[in-house]
Amino acid sequence: MSRNLKSVNLTVIGKILTAHDEIANMPIQPNGAEDQVGIAEVYPEFEEGLMDLDGFSHIILLYHFHGQQGYQLVVKPFMDDTEHGVFATRSPKRPGAIGMSVVRLLKTEGNKIYFEGADMLNETPLIDIKPFFRMFDNRPDAVSGWLEGKDEEHIKKVRSDNRFK
Amino acid sequence: MSRNLKSVNLTVIGKILTAHDEIANMPIQPNGAEDQVGIAEVYPEFEEGLMDLDGFSHIILLYHFHGQQGYQLVVKPFMDDTEHGVFATRSPKRPGAIGMSVVRLLKTEGNKIYFEGADMLNETPLIDIKPFFRMFDNRPDAVSGWLEGKDEEHIKKVRSDNRFK
Repeated sequence: MSRNLKSVNLTVIGKILTAHDEIANMPIQPNGAEDQVGIAEVYPEFEEGLMDLDGFSHIILLYHFHGQQGYQLVVKPFMDDTEHGVFATRSPKRPGAIGMSVVRLLKTEGNKIYFEGADMLNETPLIDIKPFFRMFDNRPDAVSGWLEGKDEEHIKKVRSDNRFK
Repeated sequence: MSRNLKSVNLTVIGKILTAHDEIANMPIQPNGAEDQVGIAEVYPEFEEGLMDLDGFSHIILLYHFHGQQGYQLVVKPFMDDTEHGVFATRSPKRPGAIGMSVVRLLKTEGNKIYFEGADMLNETPLIDIKPFFRMFDNRPDAVSGWLEGKDEEHIKKVRSDNRFK
């Protein structure tokens, strides 16, 4: 409730297992990782909270960018040659080091969620899972600033390098 | 890097000012708050990170559900009469107490972002701002589990009560 709170302590609900043990050469968005299966595993004490999640085709994973040290306020993102403010990019090197991926749910099994679109590091701390609501979460007419006019198919193929290590 | 990390400390980058000083009677999604203007204010040390954000029509706000105490793993959401696991709902009473709202950006002015779709409490701690990428963030064909078949216009009008206080 503080007026100028500097940090907040958040519960970690589990971890995400992926094939990416290093930052270099990772897909940079779930759309570029459609063939990459990951497992979001909640700790057993939270398993009950997964009830009915399997009715959704897509879920939102929120997680901690645990592989990052510090942040950069102005960055040159993977998808552009120009610098932008970090909040106008998805760079992982951000002050509030939270990542977000909308992924395709394959199945749930006990405390494990199998999904397609694994664009995060292996052993990533999982903070939250939300259902993707088609009626609420789409913005088909959104204007996307500096990303407008880029070739979508090309962007899907972009892989990370070590610039944000 | 711990294998069973229990919590993580995240930087708060600012706060969100809205007209909602109480949980009761709030809109429950940005789509139900289209006429509600809010201000996301980053602390001055993060202002540089807003560069080029104003080219985007929509942004994603991630914030701490600071008005909540504890969590409930099984909840009856505002939009349904049946119980579901908390991770299959957008209930604010969740273990990793992070809220997410996709809102319409009106303008930026110094360290302030004016937006439409203010569905969060006044003085909410802001953790991150991300640009909404039309090419990456839409899932027009998503299947939405228990929410399928609900009347969208009705849901927009739903307001919160005190069940998650």
